[in-house]
Amino acid sequence: MTPSHWYNIVPDLPAPPPPPLHPGTMRPVGPDDLAPLFPAELIAQEVSGDRFVEIPQEVLDVYRLWRPTPLMRARRLEKALGTPARIYYKYEGVSPAGSHKPNTAVPQAYYNARQGVRRLTTETGAGQWGSALAFACAQYDLECEVWMVRASYDQKPYRRSLMRLYGATVHASPSSVTSAGSKVLAEEPGSPGSLGIAISEAVEVAGASDDTRYALGSVLNHVLMHQTVIGEEALEQLPEMPDVVIGCTGGGSNFAGLVFPFLREKLAGRISPVLRAVEPEACPSFTRGVYAYDFGDTAGFTPLLKMHTLGHDFVPDPIHAGGLRYHGMSPLLSHMYELGMFEAVATSQKECFQAGVRFARAEGIVPAPEPTHALAETIAEALRCRESGQEKVILTALCGHGHFDLAAYDRFLGGEMEDFSLPEERISAALSTLPVIRTPSP
Amino acid sequence: MTPSHWYNIVPDLPAPPPPPLHPGTMRPVGPDDLAPLFPAELIAQEVSGDRFVEIPQEVLDVYRLWRPTPLMRARRLEKALGTPARIYYKYEGVSPAGSHKPNTAVPQAYYNARQGVRRLTTETGAGQWGSALAFACAQYDLECEVWMVRASYDQKPYRRSLMRLYGATVHASPSSVTSAGSKVLAEEPGSPGSLGIAISEAVEVAGASDDTRYALGSVLNHVLMHQTVIGEEALEQLPEMPDVVIGCTGGGSNFAGLVFPFLREKLAGRISPVLRAVEPEACPSFTRGVYAYDFGDTAGFTPLLKMHTLGHDFVPDPIHAGGLRYHGMSPLLSHMYELGMFEAVATSQKECFQAGVRFARAEGIVPAPEPTHALAETIAEALRCRESGQEKVILTALCGHGHFDLAAYDRFLGGEMEDFSLPEERISAALSTLPVIRTPSP
Repeated sequence: MTPSHWYNIVPDLPAPPPPPLHPGTMRPVGPDDLAPLFPAELIAQEVSGDRFVEIPQEVLDVYRLWRPTPLMRARRLEKALGTPARIYYKYEGVSPAGSHKPNTAVPQAYYNARQGVRRLTTETGAGQWGSALAFACAQYDLECEVWMVRASYDQKPYRRSLMRLYGATVHASPSSVTSAGSKVLAEEPGSPGSLGIAISEAVEVAGASDDTRYALGSVLNHVLMHQTVIGEEALEQLPEMPDVVIGCTGGGSNFAGLVFPFLREKLAGRISPVLRAVEPEACPSFTRGVYAYDFGDTAGFTPLLKMHTLGHDFVPDPIHAGGLRYHGMSPLLSHMYELGMFEAVATSQKECFQAGVRFARAEGIVPAPEPTHALAETIAEALRCRESGQEKVILTALCGHGHFDLAAYDRFLGGEMEDFSLPEERISAALSTLPVIRTPSP
Repeated sequence: MTPSHWYNIVPDLPAPPPPPLHPGTMRPVGPDDLAPLFPAELIAQEVSGDRFVEIPQEVLDVYRLWRPTPLMRARRLEKALGTPARIYYKYEGVSPAGSHKPNTAVPQAYYNARQGVRRLTTETGAGQWGSALAFACAQYDLECEVWMVRASYDQKPYRRSLMRLYGATVHASPSSVTSAGSKVLAEEPGSPGSLGIAISEAVEVAGASDDTRYALGSVLNHVLMHQTVIGEEALEQLPEMPDVVIGCTGGGSNFAGLVFPFLREKLAGRISPVLRAVEPEACPSFTRGVYAYDFGDTAGFTPLLKMHTLGHDFVPDPIHAGGLRYHGMSPLLSHMYELGMFEAVATSQKECFQAGVRFARAEGIVPAPEPTHALAETIAEALRCRESGQEKVILTALCGHGHFDLAAYDRFLGGEMEDFSLPEERISAALSTLPVIRTPSP
């Protein structure tokens, strides 16, 4: 059964997360600051103290197109690994856009439509988030305008086609339709773009028009909350409770969606799983970043967020898991990590693709590069169980399929894939540009 | 529930289909003729008189990775069309290879593995069948060698990558590893290949080696029978019985898999749906072909099959629905069409893509070009219901997703897609080369 409510973990925490700060005043950002960008209902959810938020019927009517998603036991993978562990995976790739992203794109589009918004803008890298939002906008007759990082726009045409098929307008970013984009183009006509620039363009267009708002695909509290449908369904579907829950982290929405419901049960003393986030070695915000106030974007237009960060200047190496190439981390998850509520590890790109190939050959599904991080750690855990003889129950989230990533698999199978080392100096250089937090004047 | 048996419609027919003939002797082909190419169990299924064949546990263990597949009501499409009709679709795109093809690839690989075969060969056009067989071979530790038509090999690299990811060896056809391929290359070094040439190469390699067999993805009786899991599940999942069942036809396996179980119930007098096959206007074997003995391949290496055919010399225009570009039709379905057991219509490419876009925007799933044929007719039927006010129940099969066909959707949305007209002279020219059937000498 698809759940009837999203779960908001904030009121269950031992302490609330630090608030976002306005970079000018250094005071907490309030609802009014956010109103030009987000509809009232989402702003209310962002700061809500309710433990459960009812999912509107109009959202359930769209969730029904692919939810509940399958929870599968990976029996053939277990056998191939020779492990006594029992491995379960929750598969979000059955959604129309092929990932977990529509879980939040749909309610975001719905609340905007209900408030009379006519158009949504957003940025996208490889296109997972953009295609999810394009699909969601088609469901509620909203226009959708996406700024797609130029490098991906040119190299990965198929997710661009998917957005257009759903009716969205897709711009290569930097574009000449915004002043932010025009400025970059004037300085560097052949700019390959960046997520930071694309955010600036989408935010500029949303802010300039009364009937237009902006949508974000991860990081924020309400986005994480929408994703808890993943974990709620898994709790209900699992025939036995997990000893270990493993998910990949970029901005944090997939991991939070999977683990928050299990954390609620753990806080209530009903279960006691180990929870583990897996990030790329090339972008290790939990394992090598600092916990500090930083900008959410490269250009420094967003509020200051207290989070695990590698510095907003940090540009991750071009790993194929585009969805995990983010310098920061959800402030809520960062706060919880500081409270010791879950673990984090980092894996290398080759190890991840090796896990992806192993999984595809055993279970059939081709995983997107992002969830291969969780699979690599799941396989490592299962192999440790083979050594120790422990019959652990492992749960992981397969948050998307890799149908648009086969060129990357080809490179891996052809022996052409690289791993990236990340010297300490690169991280400290990026961290040296962290904003200085001044105490606000009274 | 995934069914426990496949349904063999042959014993339920009022008359048996005419047998395949050996082109040399003009006598019916016997099991011994087929033994170099197929394992004994599949040959037995090809000529079986049993109404039901039990699905082996080892096959069910793999079906379980994606079966039962979803049966969905297309409520949002109904609303968009303003129709009183109720539309249901059975979605086979959730399989690992993304189409209905693994339903037969898995048992074919299994029976070969059980007989001690070490390697399977096959041909593939755009790659749907090849990737299904590559996946199936990975499940039973068989080697898989695929000859992929050169034009697709170069233009559609992603299904090629998918086959390699599952561990298969993929050759561009014509290839220099067979004498059939070498001969073509000697005459035309830059040959784009054809399905006919690729079949010759795969058959040559299978026939030359004791531990190697050949696998076919449609047309044959046992292939159609394996696909009946689609219709059996739909019968069980539907909350109400259909008035119309609509499926697309190329070689016939998707259509047969959907309708045979409904035909059984119809023959028993329990239901009375209209059954309708939809084929491309560019390759209309039912609606404009003849019912005659013809070769199954272009080169004339196969037995003679009594079927609806456009002539084995007929080369269909390059529509995007590669899986429907076959000059002939399943002999079993052809026989049943002659008996008046179902209807057939043809649709144009643009009408199909228009239906695909409509469906994707309403229901989220991007259909492969093949099932857009069934969707175009489903939408046409639903619009006729809007005119007449009839509340018909329509069932269709969405036999695969279009994640590897987004370039075609881009062309359609950009106004660059062509329709093909098929003058009568082209058909009569191809039909003039039909083989002459001599009465065998006693």
